[in-house]
Amino acid sequence: MNPDITRERENATFNVEKLTHILDGGIEKTKRRREIESLVISDPDFQSEDLNFLSRSERYDAAVKKSAQMILKLREYGISDPEEIYCYKSVFRGNHQEPLDLHLAMFLPTLLNQASPEQMETFFIPAWNLDIIGTYAQTEMGHGTHLRGLETTATYDPATQEFVLNSPTITSIKWWPGGLGKTSNHAIVLAQLHTQGKCHGLHAFIVPLRSMNTHIPLPGVVVGDIGPKFGFDEVDNGYLKLENVRIPREHMLMKYAKVEADGTYVKPPSAKLTYGTMVFIRSMIVGEAGHALAKSCTIAIRYSSVRHQSEIRPGEPEPQIMDYQTQQYKLFPLLATAYAYKFVGQYMNQVYHRITGDISQGDFSELPELHALSAGLKAFTTWTASEGIEVCRMACGGHGYSRCSALPDIYVNFVATCTYEGENTVMMLQTARFLIKSYQQASAGHQLSGIVSYLNESERRLQPQSVSSRPTVVNVNDLASLVEAYKLRAAKLVEVAAKSIQQELQKRVSQEDAWNNSAIDLVRASNAHCHYVVVKLFAAKLGEIGDTGVHSVLSTLALLYALQGIQQNSGDFLQVTTTMTGLLSVPQLSQVSQRLKELLAQLRPNAVALVDAFDYCDEMLNSVLGRYDGNVYEHMFEWARRSPLNKTEVHESYHKYLKPLQAKL
Amino acid sequence: MNPDITRERENATFNVEKLTHILDGGIEKTKRRREIESLVISDPDFQSEDLNFLSRSERYDAAVKKSAQMILKLREYGISDPEEIYCYKSVFRGNHQEPLDLHLAMFLPTLLNQASPEQMETFFIPAWNLDIIGTYAQTEMGHGTHLRGLETTATYDPATQEFVLNSPTITSIKWWPGGLGKTSNHAIVLAQLHTQGKCHGLHAFIVPLRSMNTHIPLPGVVVGDIGPKFGFDEVDNGYLKLENVRIPREHMLMKYAKVEADGTYVKPPSAKLTYGTMVFIRSMIVGEAGHALAKSCTIAIRYSSVRHQSEIRPGEPEPQIMDYQTQQYKLFPLLATAYAYKFVGQYMNQVYHRITGDISQGDFSELPELHALSAGLKAFTTWTASEGIEVCRMACGGHGYSRCSALPDIYVNFVATCTYEGENTVMMLQTARFLIKSYQQASAGHQLSGIVSYLNESERRLQPQSVSSRPTVVNVNDLASLVEAYKLRAAKLVEVAAKSIQQELQKRVSQEDAWNNSAIDLVRASNAHCHYVVVKLFAAKLGEIGDTGVHSVLSTLALLYALQGIQQNSGDFLQVTTTMTGLLSVPQLSQVSQRLKELLAQLRPNAVALVDAFDYCDEMLNSVLGRYDGNVYEHMFEWARRSPLNKTEVHESYHKYLKPLQAKL
Repeated sequence: MNPDITRERENATFNVEKLTHILDGGIEKTKRRREIESLVISDPDFQSEDLNFLSRSERYDAAVKKSAQMILKLREYGISDPEEIYCYKSVFRGNHQEPLDLHLAMFLPTLLNQASPEQMETFFIPAWNLDIIGTYAQTEMGHGTHLRGLETTATYDPATQEFVLNSPTITSIKWWPGGLGKTSNHAIVLAQLHTQGKCHGLHAFIVPLRSMNTHIPLPGVVVGDIGPKFGFDEVDNGYLKLENVRIPREHMLMKYAKVEADGTYVKPPSAKLTYGTMVFIRSMIVGEAGHALAKSCTIAIRYSSVRHQSEIRPGEPEPQIMDYQTQQYKLFPLLATAYAYKFVGQYMNQVYHRITGDISQGDFSELPELHALSAGLKAFTTWTASEGIEVCRMACGGHGYSRCSALPDIYVNFVATCTYEGENTVMMLQTARFLIKSYQQASAGHQLSGIVSYLNESERRLQPQSVSSRPTVVNVNDLASLVEAYKLRAAKLVEVAAKSIQQELQKRVSQEDAWNNSAIDLVRASNAHCHYVVVKLFAAKLGEIGDTGVHSVLSTLALLYALQGIQQNSGDFLQVTTTMTGLLSVPQLSQVSQRLKELLAQLRPNAVALVDAFDYCDEMLNSVLGRYDGNVYEHMFEWARRSPLNKTEVHESYHKYLKPLQAKL
Repeated sequence: MNPDITRERENATFNVEKLTHILDGGIEKTKRRREIESLVISDPDFQSEDLNFLSRSERYDAAVKKSAQMILKLREYGISDPEEIYCYKSVFRGNHQEPLDLHLAMFLPTLLNQASPEQMETFFIPAWNLDIIGTYAQTEMGHGTHLRGLETTATYDPATQEFVLNSPTITSIKWWPGGLGKTSNHAIVLAQLHTQGKCHGLHAFIVPLRSMNTHIPLPGVVVGDIGPKFGFDEVDNGYLKLENVRIPREHMLMKYAKVEADGTYVKPPSAKLTYGTMVFIRSMIVGEAGHALAKSCTIAIRYSSVRHQSEIRPGEPEPQIMDYQTQQYKLFPLLATAYAYKFVGQYMNQVYHRITGDISQGDFSELPELHALSAGLKAFTTWTASEGIEVCRMACGGHGYSRCSALPDIYVNFVATCTYEGENTVMMLQTARFLIKSYQQASAGHQLSGIVSYLNESERRLQPQSVSSRPTVVNVNDLASLVEAYKLRAAKLVEVAAKSIQQELQKRVSQEDAWNNSAIDLVRASNAHCHYVVVKLFAAKLGEIGDTGVHSVLSTLALLYALQGIQQNSGDFLQVTTTMTGLLSVPQLSQVSQRLKELLAQLRPNAVALVDAFDYCDEMLNSVLGRYDGNVYEHMFEWARRSPLNKTEVHESYHKYLKPLQAKL
């Protein structure tokens, strides 16, 4: 054990284990998680060469191998609870993805949600047994977020009782689905349904892609890998061009909408029924944002405690780089953010499960709010977490740039969440639509409930004449007071966006153009709303924590999170009211800066303990810099020596190009 | 040609070719650049498979091949001017790096600057002929920016008239130098010189690493590749462990400092003599920031003109995504930034050449300012450009994540500049040191000259009592007035930092701790200083442009750049004075927002023409999304089909893992 990091741990002022239990949701959950993790760690079948040393084809190969093994192991150990499966996967996949992810996360759940009982019988068990390996093919080369624009067609032919699937244009080729290129033998294909001469919009069809015996693509199916990407090297994201592919009528997912044998179309009872999965996945991504950032902070903070560099005081030994105020300012607010997002993830999960209960009872009332919240928070957390991962990487200096730090892997695999499952700007605008609608309802005198209830007050509070009714001046040392400040900022920015739309409309532009011409303001409003929600939830979480030591350190983190957000968006807080003075004054902002510095110094002794509490084992981090024992340098050397370029002392290119050149010149 | 992009070009309001000449520095330079580019493009020897389809070893191999060919071609064509060599390389390397980069950019120049005439004779011609292939080995595993911390030793042995080189610890292993792992047979090694029992600090030594005949490492030389990185896949960044390696006395670079035969150390005449290369490389990086961002904008803006998605007005066809205000808000300020950095790069280049003249005359007076400026601007431009590249990438939606967009390559290879040649935060603090020193001089009544002369006024202007002497209110439509606003912001933030140091000192902490405890403020001050310099130089450039159409569109860009900076840092501008009111008022900030939206709409018709003016040929961009002809989709499909995973219809992993699994379950 590196003595620097041991000393850090000795200096912690709280019980790390207790904080871990809070993050896991209870002592029992921590115990069970560790049991599952140790199953993977001790399993020789999961030991493998660092994926970074392999070619893409080898990485894909290794990932398929692991996935196949996992299926066998899960059965062997009798693990079937989704949360436990997730936990098991998290260990062996490390910072990477898997070709079978969409089979498990989209194909099977879509069957569960949208297949009729007969279809469940036909498809689910084979899919569960991996005879059928499926993916979910929605996005097309020319069409992403805008589902109505999808071009793939499924035309019903009553003569044979089949659907005929086609990709009519180059832009209609299915593009991006994970596992589509080489792994899957089936796909759920989203296509425009045509029957009896009419188009009924998008529906889902189970399309066999490859022979069950030979795995060779079936006639009319042009399928393959879309080529290398920023990350996701282990996944065969694929393309699919359908040329008059015929499937039986029973391959349309018919739990809700139906096409009868004669071609008669039967509408689904509610359009909202397919909403759920989307909301669930976006909520999951919020948790993933916390997860990715927590891993990155673990690596950067542990490394900062063992790395010595430069000097603060002349003549003294080089200090730990964590002693630099600039380093603390980079990392500690991100650490606070990681905690915030972990708690927000827990909250979203709870809300989702509560509302799913309501939905199954036919009560959709809370769905719009959850939909808006999950969309905005997905965008807000993935953007900030992605930036944060890069800050962590660069805070490790040159070594952060090496793949041995794991930070490049974490970044390239996480940053995709900004784009998939709803492009972030589009997500922000969806949340904005809900906010503006709520604002208009409040303006019309309706009493709002739920998370947007603050818009009830905004009209009243933000009028210049009612300055006196504003709450007493913000106290920058009081979290509750800061939550209030974030709330007023959100209210103000929603109002600014709403007014921009009104002003545009006064110029006689259409409702749609007014919306587009206010889009910058709308995104800002959503952003402020999400920021408020995060600060509020972080503050609420503190109320649940009994242990004094843990409560104290988490309070410091929450205050740091809130104050740093104010500093970074100080313009918003200075101009938050329509009156002459802002919500915060200029001297208060200096106070914020001063307080921030104090909080950094205050957190310094607990930094390593706070990342230890995330409890990522070395196998999950797979980072030389983030090792629990802090013994970075010897392992970096050992890792480097395994680089494939070191297999021979002299690379063949010397004989091929350099030696002949030297002879020639 | 895609009709959308043709229409864009028809709508431009200025002469693209004229703007290209301005960027190149004259019509003749444009002509010559294109001549050189066409040499590479038409050369069948430089045609190769997309590097993204190759393994790392194959990529390294391909890069060595290209480098070797380049040397032959340059001689064949008689190209020897450094700028022309740079231009030649820029085409064939595309978005990648080369193993021989350090040979050309560091090894040869260091010989030129630091070798004695006899050493020039011994080493330069062989190095020029690539018999000697060299690199520059400075950084060690445990030591980066802080040069004094380097541990490698070179101990003089007068008995044999040799230096004995050693890596005494694991942290002293040389780490990171490009081309060190496999390519180089020599290195210039920075080591602590010991002679006659005394250490004389860092000096440079030419160390043979590999046999000139067999390329096998020499005795005592442990050398290899440090393994895969975020980018730089083509480069064999290496490690070097020296175990009692003996080199003749004549291998110490002795143009300035010397060790005589008996071991007597002779000091160099000035410590500043080796400053120059560092300043030069940092200045170059500023230009590279403009270059990388300009490429990224070219790709994202062309793609945004041919990509159609979603709807603005119901019932109408899907609009070009460039018609979305949010898309314009992402890309156009970055386009403005790319122009700004290109102009700053030109300026730095000019200043460098002017000052180099002075230095060779023994006049070092301007060096501290240039050093401070190049450090800060290097950090400022590389941070913002790196973030900007990612914004461009994500603005391309899912397809930006594909390696076919080229944006991942541009990012991973460029972002390293934030760390190398001086870690950015350290660079910002170096600039801050100069600013604080200047501020203190001004406070003591000295009249400052040069770029920091604004600090002369700050003391006077920023006093509360002298509100009346402030310039008239900022005009948000007038660039000169905005330059003034940026200047006052910089002056204010330098003052805040200086005062923080004073306050810390009053708490009786040491000078060094006071500095560290004010580091956040110091970085902010440097940042504001650099921002001011960029805005000022952009405004100054406009004065040189005669053509009305070009002047008009560049003025719009400059205004956009300045106003967006104000919006993003609105807190600074609202609180810029120590008086009760800010430099800008809250209503003025609303005006800024409004004006920004207008400028986006105004730039919309010129966006494609503005990226065309950068004049990157398709071969240099190597991006399916950024193609000049806009025919994105068919080429994306064609590119994907070449993916190595598509070489067989069925990947071997199916037979190895999936089929047996299906049989087993």
